[in-house]
Amino acid sequence: MKDVRIAGVGLTKFGSYPERTGRDLFAEAALAAREDAGVSRDDYEEIYYGNFMGELAESQGHQGPVMAEAAGLSCPATRYEQACASAGVAFRQAVRTIRSGAADVVLAGGMERMNNLGTAKVTQSLAIAADELFEVRAGVTFPGAYALMARAYFDEFGGDTEDLAHIAVKNHANAMSNEYAQFHREIAVEDVMESAVVADPLRLYDACPITDGASAIVLVSDDYAEKHGLDAPVSVAGTGQGGDKAALQDREYLARTPAATKAAEEAYADAGISPDDIDVAEVHDCFTIAEVLALESLGLYDHGEGIGAAARGETTRDGDLPVNLSGGLKAKGHPVGATGTAQLVEMTKLLRGDHTNSDAVSDAEIGITHNAGGTVSSAVVHVLEVMN
Amino acid sequence: MKDVRIAGVGLTKFGSYPERTGRDLFAEAALAAREDAGVSRDDYEEIYYGNFMGELAESQGHQGPVMAEAAGLSCPATRYEQACASAGVAFRQAVRTIRSGAADVVLAGGMERMNNLGTAKVTQSLAIAADELFEVRAGVTFPGAYALMARAYFDEFGGDTEDLAHIAVKNHANAMSNEYAQFHREIAVEDVMESAVVADPLRLYDACPITDGASAIVLVSDDYAEKHGLDAPVSVAGTGQGGDKAALQDREYLARTPAATKAAEEAYADAGISPDDIDVAEVHDCFTIAEVLALESLGLYDHGEGIGAAARGETTRDGDLPVNLSGGLKAKGHPVGATGTAQLVEMTKLLRGDHTNSDAVSDAEIGITHNAGGTVSSAVVHVLEVMN
Repeated sequence: MKDVRIAGVGLTKFGSYPERTGRDLFAEAALAAREDAGVSRDDYEEIYYGNFMGELAESQGHQGPVMAEAAGLSCPATRYEQACASAGVAFRQAVRTIRSGAADVVLAGGMERMNNLGTAKVTQSLAIAADELFEVRAGVTFPGAYALMARAYFDEFGGDTEDLAHIAVKNHANAMSNEYAQFHREIAVEDVMESAVVADPLRLYDACPITDGASAIVLVSDDYAEKHGLDAPVSVAGTGQGGDKAALQDREYLARTPAATKAAEEAYADAGISPDDIDVAEVHDCFTIAEVLALESLGLYDHGEGIGAAARGETTRDGDLPVNLSGGLKAKGHPVGATGTAQLVEMTKLLRGDHTNSDAVSDAEIGITHNAGGTVSSAVVHVLEVMN
Repeated sequence: MKDVRIAGVGLTKFGSYPERTGRDLFAEAALAAREDAGVSRDDYEEIYYGNFMGELAESQGHQGPVMAEAAGLSCPATRYEQACASAGVAFRQAVRTIRSGAADVVLAGGMERMNNLGTAKVTQSLAIAADELFEVRAGVTFPGAYALMARAYFDEFGGDTEDLAHIAVKNHANAMSNEYAQFHREIAVEDVMESAVVADPLRLYDACPITDGASAIVLVSDDYAEKHGLDAPVSVAGTGQGGDKAALQDREYLARTPAATKAAEEAYADAGISPDDIDVAEVHDCFTIAEVLALESLGLYDHGEGIGAAARGETTRDGDLPVNLSGGLKAKGHPVGATGTAQLVEMTKLLRGDHTNSDAVSDAEIGITHNAGGTVSSAVVHVLEVMN
């Protein structure tokens, strides 16, 4: 089996760009990744592309061919849709394609355009990631669903909204120096606690923003990297995916996300590591409570212990296990179909040492990314490792 | 690299089911495939699922988890969207996953629900598979696009609408005994020639219908098949994918589909065969002209020779190379996101000898399937081989 290396990464600045097309956004990220990789244009064999709501936001399905053109490449491109985990699953299959020996150079990435829809239509469009028949028709939207999960967590394990506020504060602080982040605004616990209630117990500052943006990664086989003398120090050591019932009502627990646990266990086994080996993490904090559920599902914290991690300073940039040094979905932004590979771009840079926050993890060798779809009815986890 | 076998196949009858949900349709196909395979429920590791317009037809994105439940499985499921080639690309990645050694048992399939939208909305929804900015806004819909390709073909290579009519007649005849086909109605050349013009030179009977339906296939590694004594005589010998510019205007030729040629060349090389080795074909005849373009792009006919193949009796059930013995998209029906794996279901049964039309190809050893997206801006080709 061929080993997979990351040869180049690219991002747009995340933000609100109602006037830019999806192809324009993806072109920017893909060309940045191609430039970073320095791989010959003719060597690209396939594109793995994630997008969630292109049909609704741009009336553009079948985005593969459109995005291949945008990336300046003539190879086939396939679109993956797995709600907020779209780019994560695209990246996973890109890894497997190289491992199977079918290709040596592929591009993986994603794009989402949301702000052009306006807030009400975006909320409605995001809701189609839940179970239409059994959740959406009953009035469930994602702030409401994650509020249920937060309530269930407080009931089962304790903790409170102030614990959650510390997560928002941490992620906003991390985003301050990240030029690709949507928000560059330091906030305090009181700001979160005083912000408007969106879905009790979650407030405005517990939620990630509505974001447009794109991300892209060039993946190569180790053979190719060596043959062409590429500077590609980060390898994809492990990949895992998990699934759960689409609707919250069909699950045994609301305050645990077994799909992420399954994904993590598979990724750890694939990489031959355990949770103790993780030095740094980028997790799917679409809401503050989601970061807690992620840390516990990945085995980085015991159940009930994750909620206090930020408040105790363990997951802050100076802590033992920095989490979401990029700013996370919370402050960096969450262009849904781009988020999975965006997390991997940030992690690659953190491990390579050219991230604005790399100094916080200068000894880090192993990083984990956790990308979730819906109420974690889908989860995909990757382990990246820097080669010494 | 592990060899991939087809252990079971399943279909719904194709037709118009505005009252059935997508999950209901997929459940029927998936359970039929599972029953045909006889594989233990707990052994399923992943689902590869194709769907094109679920956001528009059912307001249901993120269909992976929903369809895993429908299939009665608890493994992760990923949704692929590649317009009319959605299930084809899903199947391709399922093959690669087994080849990479990451799984031994996976389910691949697809579903589309269209008739509940009504004709006008369906035409509009299908159009999003074309280039929204440069084609759809100019008024292009798929009958119009394929009419342009037919005109260009007549201009470059000759042939006429009567040649195309023979393709429709052939495919309707093939569907007569196929219990899964949408149409069971024999037609004559005059019926086609006298039917209403949809987009000159294409008439109503040159076009496939609007179809609801689902398809599913159980794929296993050869190791697994042997260990469990499965009756899985058909192997996936080759897979290939090609891409082209999204918009027709950006292509060098309108009457050739190089994406399919690229896909076929890759699949032939993968299988170690040449076009001469093909005994039977299922190709993407969304319009009669599309069957011609497919036969030529796959190297089964020279350019200009494919259009007369049906009229000359070469691709009919008694010909040397029977094409679309299922009835094709034209008469069997075209539930967009299900078509790719539906073609593979039909081919598997033709090669196993349990298809209603198997007697027409009783000596067949190698079959090819050709699944296209948009105006063949995406193409995916598979070669199946029966083990003796």
